[in-house]
Amino acid sequence: MSMAEDQSADVAGLMEEVGRKARASAELLALAPSKAKDAALLAAAMTLRANVDDILDANARDMAFGREKGLTAAMLDRLALDEERIEGIAKGLEAVAALKDPVGDIMADWERPNGLRIERVRVPLGVIGVIYESRPNVTADAGALCLKAGNAAILRGGSESFHSSHAIHDCLVEGLSAAGLPEAAIQLVPTRDRAAVGEMLRGLGGRLDVIVPRGGRGLIERVQTEARVPVFAHLDGVCHVYVDGAADLDMARDIVVNAKMRRTGICGSAETVLVDRACAGTHLRPIIEALLEKGCEVRGDDTVRAEVSAAKQASEDDWYTEYLDAIIAIKVVNGVSEAIEHIGKYGSHHTDAIVTSDEKTAEKFLNEVDSAIVLHNASTQFADGGEFGMGAEIGIATGRFHARGPVGVEQLTSFKYVVRGKGQTRP
Amino acid sequence: MSMAEDQSADVAGLMEEVGRKARASAELLALAPSKAKDAALLAAAMTLRANVDDILDANARDMAFGREKGLTAAMLDRLALDEERIEGIAKGLEAVAALKDPVGDIMADWERPNGLRIERVRVPLGVIGVIYESRPNVTADAGALCLKAGNAAILRGGSESFHSSHAIHDCLVEGLSAAGLPEAAIQLVPTRDRAAVGEMLRGLGGRLDVIVPRGGRGLIERVQTEARVPVFAHLDGVCHVYVDGAADLDMARDIVVNAKMRRTGICGSAETVLVDRACAGTHLRPIIEALLEKGCEVRGDDTVRAEVSAAKQASEDDWYTEYLDAIIAIKVVNGVSEAIEHIGKYGSHHTDAIVTSDEKTAEKFLNEVDSAIVLHNASTQFADGGEFGMGAEIGIATGRFHARGPVGVEQLTSFKYVVRGKGQTRP
Repeated sequence: MSMAEDQSADVAGLMEEVGRKARASAELLALAPSKAKDAALLAAAMTLRANVDDILDANARDMAFGREKGLTAAMLDRLALDEERIEGIAKGLEAVAALKDPVGDIMADWERPNGLRIERVRVPLGVIGVIYESRPNVTADAGALCLKAGNAAILRGGSESFHSSHAIHDCLVEGLSAAGLPEAAIQLVPTRDRAAVGEMLRGLGGRLDVIVPRGGRGLIERVQTEARVPVFAHLDGVCHVYVDGAADLDMARDIVVNAKMRRTGICGSAETVLVDRACAGTHLRPIIEALLEKGCEVRGDDTVRAEVSAAKQASEDDWYTEYLDAIIAIKVVNGVSEAIEHIGKYGSHHTDAIVTSDEKTAEKFLNEVDSAIVLHNASTQFADGGEFGMGAEIGIATGRFHARGPVGVEQLTSFKYVVRGKGQTRP
Repeated sequence: MSMAEDQSADVAGLMEEVGRKARASAELLALAPSKAKDAALLAAAMTLRANVDDILDANARDMAFGREKGLTAAMLDRLALDEERIEGIAKGLEAVAALKDPVGDIMADWERPNGLRIERVRVPLGVIGVIYESRPNVTADAGALCLKAGNAAILRGGSESFHSSHAIHDCLVEGLSAAGLPEAAIQLVPTRDRAAVGEMLRGLGGRLDVIVPRGGRGLIERVQTEARVPVFAHLDGVCHVYVDGAADLDMARDIVVNAKMRRTGICGSAETVLVDRACAGTHLRPIIEALLEKGCEVRGDDTVRAEVSAAKQASEDDWYTEYLDAIIAIKVVNGVSEAIEHIGKYGSHHTDAIVTSDEKTAEKFLNEVDSAIVLHNASTQFADGGEFGMGAEIGIATGRFHARGPVGVEQLTSFKYVVRGKGQTRP
């Protein structure tokens, strides 16, 4: 047991101190030049590479603990590090360093009739809490994104990745120190005690500005339910592809197969296909056959099952389900309006796509589907900060507040108004 | 007792129904054309004018109730309506109708190397709760701003203004109806039961997206402490004017007097003046004398009192105090850094100004003071959505999330990403 863990008796006090240090660091970071932040990230990447052995040792301890605890093979895989993965983490830090610093950006500026010049200027958001599970790389990825946007980060990794995350965190701290930035700019919660999560969800006495949960449904649900501070997250990604009557068959088939099967485990993968009755006779069977050929289980309504006998019966629950697996639900609908209605009822406001060559129908869908991301003639798998050109992302949010869709460095900022006058007083 | 009040036995059920109707209305409003929203506002203004007598009758009942309850003269004044004030409310509705509709604005657009065209498009925020006290005009002002940005509003007026708010609300509903919009787009909580406020603070089962409190410190504090949904508000407006050593004396005097005395009761009025020791010998006395001459009480540190004997001794508490009255605290500091430090410690992150002819000092102040609004050579009384050119505002927020500074129609929106492709799939 480390010294840090000894302190867990007073988790509330410990976390208050973490919050206080984070707030103090955030004030300094807000004024830190881009060069210093980038230097910290680059130095951390070098330190990671120089400490591969220590990190692998720490990871071996976590893996042994994980096996003892009976973690599944999938969880152990998420936890495992090797030289290649560590190099990937280092490259990730360098990629964040290469992004444009959003702080100080003038988002808008205008002049008033009285001569006042007003600018809306990006500033950091403040202190960002990240609560994650077994992937130790989140320590570096999330810490780096927060730092780039001038925010202090409080990272709470899963207990399974405790030693690995600490070893990676040590490298980040070394980078901060080398760049003359406060070491508490990126803190890792120094206890495995679960009470620390509760303290973060209560906001550390107003010292935490936003929480980003990274992990499974259970974690996200708990954070969204209990957090007293804003949360950037999505609970589900029940993404749809609507194949309109005016869709080109080849395009529709390619997009559906890609949207589902390119990677089935990501939030932007499609879970439901809606096919317009107007083209069901021509499009339904080729789409289903292409999915089956790729090894995808197809569940469908009666029309779908009548078309292809290999399709299973879909239940009401299927339309709500995010499979995150090679399973898809297919339904025949009466045109775009019924598709929009279905998505509004069963969807999760994440990412939804229409395939059609009819511009008017496309615009109706794009306008009326209330999701963070809506696409016309493109795969839902593009729902990703990198694909949007934002660089790395800390997650995808389906809330309507502050950030929606991919959350990159720009979304981790706030703003202030800077007003320049020549002695104006208000009449 | 009205029928609505009879229902108060089951406030939770009543408020859930209010939330459900609001959410359903919000879905329709999100797609409503600008013309319909503006027509509703203009029809409501006409209806207000046509119903002056009914509104004055309702107000008379509230005034009688208020006198019975022993409201102060100031509270009764805030509650009172007359023909002129009702005309002002109608003109306010017309002014909101004349604003640009923010919904559908393309905030940013870019093309990716793979040909995907991405737009970030403004959409309404959703359902906005407004909790206010005695001013019945907030019913119209807040309802109109929410509607303009395509949001459903749930208004909870003070129990003192119950009948007046209902009479005004009836006119808004008539306007909505005339324009073919859902009547529940602007709802007034139909009970005086205070439990309704608690239900709103808990978010009506996820049906409320943000709460805007309008009223005194007690209300704001309760809402900020208890709300489980985001809040647009500021608790205090402890605004500062820092008079730098390089300040022009006439400009500094004019700005200080205006910042404090133009209107002492608004959140952007200055409460503390910080004077650089470098110019205290020349600037302090004329500034204090100008304030005293305008009838302002001056409280100061020892240097201030040595300069002008009419100044009272300031206590530590004074530096934290928002007087909202003709009282000001004055302190001598050692240059801009100490001013920034003082503002960071005692301020409320609302609005702060520097007077100086030194550009470098000004930039340091504008950059390092962490407030929603920072000004150079201009009065803090410009802290106002109208003065910023935003049209009307629903309030000023000092949080860092989503909206900061004046909250106008644009700040009452969210956004979504619209992606247009030609069949792209993700490799």
